[in-house]
Amino acid sequence: MPENDLSRTVVNAVNAAEVAFSKFITANDTGATGAHQAGFYLHKSSWPLYFDEPGIRGSNKDKTVRIKWHDDFETESRFIYYGTGTRNEYRLTRFGRDFPFLRDENVGDLLVLCKMNAEEYKGYVLSSDEDIDNFLDALGISSPETNRLIKAEPPPDEEQPLLQQLFSNYVAGLDRNFPQTEEVADSARRLLMQASNQQLPDIRKAPDKEILRWIDAEYQLFRDIESDYYAEVISRPFENMDSFVQIANSVLNRRKSRAGKSLEHHLSFMFEAFSLRFKDQPKTEGKKRPDFIFPGEDEYHDLSYSTDNLIFLGAKTTCKDRWRQILNEADRIKTKHLFTLQQGISSGQLKEMRIHGVKLVVPKEYITAYPPEHRDEISPLIDFIGYVKEKQS
Amino acid sequence: MPENDLSRTVVNAVNAAEVAFSKFITANDTGATGAHQAGFYLHKSSWPLYFDEPGIRGSNKDKTVRIKWHDDFETESRFIYYGTGTRNEYRLTRFGRDFPFLRDENVGDLLVLCKMNAEEYKGYVLSSDEDIDNFLDALGISSPETNRLIKAEPPPDEEQPLLQQLFSNYVAGLDRNFPQTEEVADSARRLLMQASNQQLPDIRKAPDKEILRWIDAEYQLFRDIESDYYAEVISRPFENMDSFVQIANSVLNRRKSRAGKSLEHHLSFMFEAFSLRFKDQPKTEGKKRPDFIFPGEDEYHDLSYSTDNLIFLGAKTTCKDRWRQILNEADRIKTKHLFTLQQGISSGQLKEMRIHGVKLVVPKEYITAYPPEHRDEISPLIDFIGYVKEKQS
Repeated sequence: MPENDLSRTVVNAVNAAEVAFSKFITANDTGATGAHQAGFYLHKSSWPLYFDEPGIRGSNKDKTVRIKWHDDFETESRFIYYGTGTRNEYRLTRFGRDFPFLRDENVGDLLVLCKMNAEEYKGYVLSSDEDIDNFLDALGISSPETNRLIKAEPPPDEEQPLLQQLFSNYVAGLDRNFPQTEEVADSARRLLMQASNQQLPDIRKAPDKEILRWIDAEYQLFRDIESDYYAEVISRPFENMDSFVQIANSVLNRRKSRAGKSLEHHLSFMFEAFSLRFKDQPKTEGKKRPDFIFPGEDEYHDLSYSTDNLIFLGAKTTCKDRWRQILNEADRIKTKHLFTLQQGISSGQLKEMRIHGVKLVVPKEYITAYPPEHRDEISPLIDFIGYVKEKQS
Repeated sequence: MPENDLSRTVVNAVNAAEVAFSKFITANDTGATGAHQAGFYLHKSSWPLYFDEPGIRGSNKDKTVRIKWHDDFETESRFIYYGTGTRNEYRLTRFGRDFPFLRDENVGDLLVLCKMNAEEYKGYVLSSDEDIDNFLDALGISSPETNRLIKAEPPPDEEQPLLQQLFSNYVAGLDRNFPQTEEVADSARRLLMQASNQQLPDIRKAPDKEILRWIDAEYQLFRDIESDYYAEVISRPFENMDSFVQIANSVLNRRKSRAGKSLEHHLSFMFEAFSLRFKDQPKTEGKKRPDFIFPGEDEYHDLSYSTDNLIFLGAKTTCKDRWRQILNEADRIKTKHLFTLQQGISSGQLKEMRIHGVKLVVPKEYITAYPPEHRDEISPLIDFIGYVKEKQS
């Protein structure tokens, strides 16, 4: 009877693990690219999951382990480092026949690997949007922060010390209310641009990369605010379970609510940076309010305005199941563009989307996670913006 | 984009409230009984929500308040105590025209009223099974514990001090592992029977009442174990958000998992108490495993065994949306009995159920929460047991 059992099981496994890692399964992993035997590519930073030290260029290295999948069946699989020739990569291979998690339909699922101890590994694959979101929210991970160890420090980058300083100042200046999602999103973006010494022209050069950086920065700022906001209450003993659970609900509910609107805020800012005309949350039919209509709500309701020049854009961080929600959000516009942070979708789902007139807009670096035969149909954000600009010129 | 926003909003409101109250909306409330003007009957124990002291027999008393519903629109409504004549009851009335929460389809929804301060009230109505479960789980309330103030001490009853003592001894005897759901359910029932000096013949006299007492006792024992289990960790300062969130996830995930199987354990015990032949979690077609088949799995698969003597029973604490899940769980048995703790279902849904061959089995005292014209179709547990017994005699 309980729903969401799986995401809870996986959160518990990660919490009990020595080291844990997550990544979205790509078309390359499942072998849909035809380039090689199927297996999971693992980011270089994942080496503590299976080795005592990173692989060294010039030689290969491997380790065979037993992995228990979904607390059910085991595989004897192999972590391998390829360091010879031009290669420098880690993979997890050998799952035997009938392994159920390396099929086309697993593209876009979230793989979670847990090292429980030196001998014991657990593996899970989360498929539904809801399970994936619940898992990421519970652990406070943003979807661009996958493909790395869970709970590891984020890799330092150039502007990091300055940005961290700006974030600290910002947090110190807050009053005792937790700022609204939009305020956190805007501040994170503003401070990141300041730390990186960026102006709007810099943003316009690489919108696909920038929007991911904004999302990353926003999560980081959110966690800084959270740490400060709850610092006192979690450092004092709780009187009883009720008072503990009250704070626990407040923290976890806030994390779940956070992700909701921020993608839309960042997209709005981006469209403004490109001087596009648009309306967010426009009314269409009845009570329906899609995320964006270009150039605006008035034009949408002006039947003399050419339908050809109306553009629809939905925005969903994950959309493996949820893409259907946008289908009836604007009757006049047959083609539904959908911006998503989804790192890969199966070719079966992509065909369904095509039939229903859904066109994906995806940050450029994520497009390689999609099956090759569909990549042409997927626009990076910069191309989508160019398309809108042309219609509006 | 975020799911379950509503249940989280309501949990937050309850946590911020001075006093809060919840109840399942009944057919009587919505006026489906035709007996009176629509309005919510409130349990006598709810008086702190609106008065400084309980109503006194012999006179009426009322208070007009503004209630903000779903953080959206307000009503100027009236709490009223009827104490004259033979009456002794509290109601909440006056919502104006077009009030959306007193319709037939609201029967079985969960009403939550929060007194934020002397002047400010908030009201919410949760409709989906998922929202209702999320809400109750987050606050650690069992569904029989509704219709009272939230977080108030449960009313003391006769065996309470002895039962509390037995529970304390049980908890003190546990090792450092949290016991499994089935173990908690069995122990709570056993200790309750001991505290009440009951034997199986006593149980057989009133199965409808006993099963609710078991569920109540199980929740109480669960919370006792939980308090003990986490006592140390919540009394020490947490090092950082990560360590707090890890425990928060563990506590809340455990609460959500708890409810899952316990209803089935209690029903199994009850059927054994009546010496019924049954199989829980039998295999039917493919991978399907319904909750119960009478008299057993072998008979189900023996095509020479008369279909007339096969009985199906599903078990779901809430089933407003989820009842459809049982429809294809056993092809041979057209009539699907469904045991539920659901306190009321709209007549629209009940008609749908009838069309699909679903027959409800509901603890006797909850049947009055259902629309009168459907009560005949609903069996109390004792009648269902009698029906099975007859088939097996």
